Amino acid sequence: MLIVGERINSSRKRIRKAIKARDAAFIRKEAVKQLGAGATHIDVNAGTSISTEVDDLKWLVQTVQAAVDAPLCIDSPSAEAQAEALKLHRGQPIINSITAEEDRAQSILPLVREHDALVVALTMGTGGIPASKDDRMQAAAKIAEMVQDAGIELTNVYWDPAVSAVSTDQKAALDVAATVRELMATYEGTHTICGLSNISFGLPNRNILNRTYLALLMAQGLDGVIMDPTEKHMMSTLLATQVLLGKDDFCMKYITAEREERLAACENHKPIAAS
Amino acid sequence: MLIVGERINSSRKRIRKAIKARDAAFIRKEAVKQLGAGATHIDVNAGTSISTEVDDLKWLVQTVQAAVDAPLCIDSPSAEAQAEALKLHRGQPIINSITAEEDRAQSILPLVREHDALVVALTMGTGGIPASKDDRMQAAAKIAEMVQDAGIELTNVYWDPAVSAVSTDQKAALDVAATVRELMATYEGTHTICGLSNISFGLPNRNILNRTYLALLMAQGLDGVIMDPTEKHMMSTLLATQVLLGKDDFCMKYITAEREERLAACENHKPIAAS
Repeated sequence: MLIVGERINSSRKRIRKAIKARDAAFIRKEAVKQLGAGATHIDVNAGTSISTEVDDLKWLVQTVQAAVDAPLCIDSPSAEAQAEALKLHRGQPIINSITAEEDRAQSILPLVREHDALVVALTMGTGGIPASKDDRMQAAAKIAEMVQDAGIELTNVYWDPAVSAVSTDQKAALDVAATVRELMATYEGTHTICGLSNISFGLPNRNILNRTYLALLMAQGLDGVIMDPTEKHMMSTLLATQVLLGKDDFCMKYITAEREERLAACENHKPIAAS
Repeated sequence: MLIVGERINSSRKRIRKAIKARDAAFIRKEAVKQLGAGATHIDVNAGTSISTEVDDLKWLVQTVQAAVDAPLCIDSPSAEAQAEALKLHRGQPIINSITAEEDRAQSILPLVREHDALVVALTMGTGGIPASKDDRMQAAAKIAEMVQDAGIELTNVYWDPAVSAVSTDQKAALDVAATVRELMATYEGTHTICGLSNISFGLPNRNILNRTYLALLMAQGLDGVIMDPTEKHMMSTLLATQVLLGKDDFCMKYITAEREERLAACENHKPIAAS
């Protein structure tokens, strides 16, 4: 399971401030914390200030990789920012992201090939969040063609089905779950990844919906997630789901997380009766 | 969704004491609390004292139904205890349970028919927890035949796939999930129900595993659960899953639960970035 820690994102006020002030200690701490909590990759995003994005992103890549020995997810739609950041990156990066939009894809795909990067491919075109599984699969087909035409293996692709809010479309959650399953079946050897938070937009107690949705998507084959790994309830759900799907040998990851106090505090549940 | 509150069970020390002392106030409180938390049915079990079970169960039925206007799940393998308790019961009862074991089924099924009861049918024979989906489906086939031979509609059946521990068999959770799906597909109009706690036997932080498994089983069609409805994390997962499966119109059950403070406290999660 690929777990991309999403905390180093300039849309968060404290991160924005730290980037502006070149506060390397703060950024390093955020990186170390996420890796310790179970992230496999650290996302870096400096997208809120377009005029300084290239320099900011370069600084983030160097600062984070000076602190942790982990690959990054470089999060920018800009080919220029990607190109500059990638030059400084060690290991196999994730490029986040392309869509079915031709200009954007064609500017990014040469970088994917050059760096043998993994690439997040949002199954959407220019029209915003897709309305249905069919729309998502159509966007995916167009992306798959562009990826292969660029000489890149489809196995480098992490499809992002573009989660939308269940509060505005009651079928949204099921639709995206079915898309995950169909993407994995249609494009053998590819992967799926997503952020969860959109699902709960407009509803209370969002974390409960987000983490429950993570479990449902993993059951459909989701093998990547962009999340805050320091959220214990979310990470606990991820680890529990791996156990339940038979993907945690001897439950060792789950038990180790318990020992390291990375699981969420649990109600003192005494089982009442065997069923 | 059928939610059977499992708290009034003599395997719990305080319940055992209350039954023995005929402490009606304590039992009433347990019933009211579970109904308030979202139970649709209240389980009553007095199985720990075989010599007094019949009288104890009769007292429980009368005491609980004097306190709440809800149907009960009468939880005893004994036909005698069931027969006496059912005489006092108002509404459509659930009889918990039969198995593929012929003597037990043949003694209970006439009561199911007489009272037009719902019946929990454990998909197991005399050999303990079944080892595989095939074993479970074989037990179900035998039960289905006996149920129909007794002149009872299969729609009265709630299959219980007999959840087993994932710590001892890594495929156990997936196997039971597949069984739920196959039972619902094979026996149209029937239902599935189970307790969750067996799944996490031998592992730490059991509630996390139990509630995550509930979500996974509901995604396969599970439409009944035997649980402690006052466990907020478990109930929150149930309500969130209904939202995500498109089974909560306008998310009203979820939002109502939030207003009534029945959802688990949630980390103050600020979404970091849309995917």
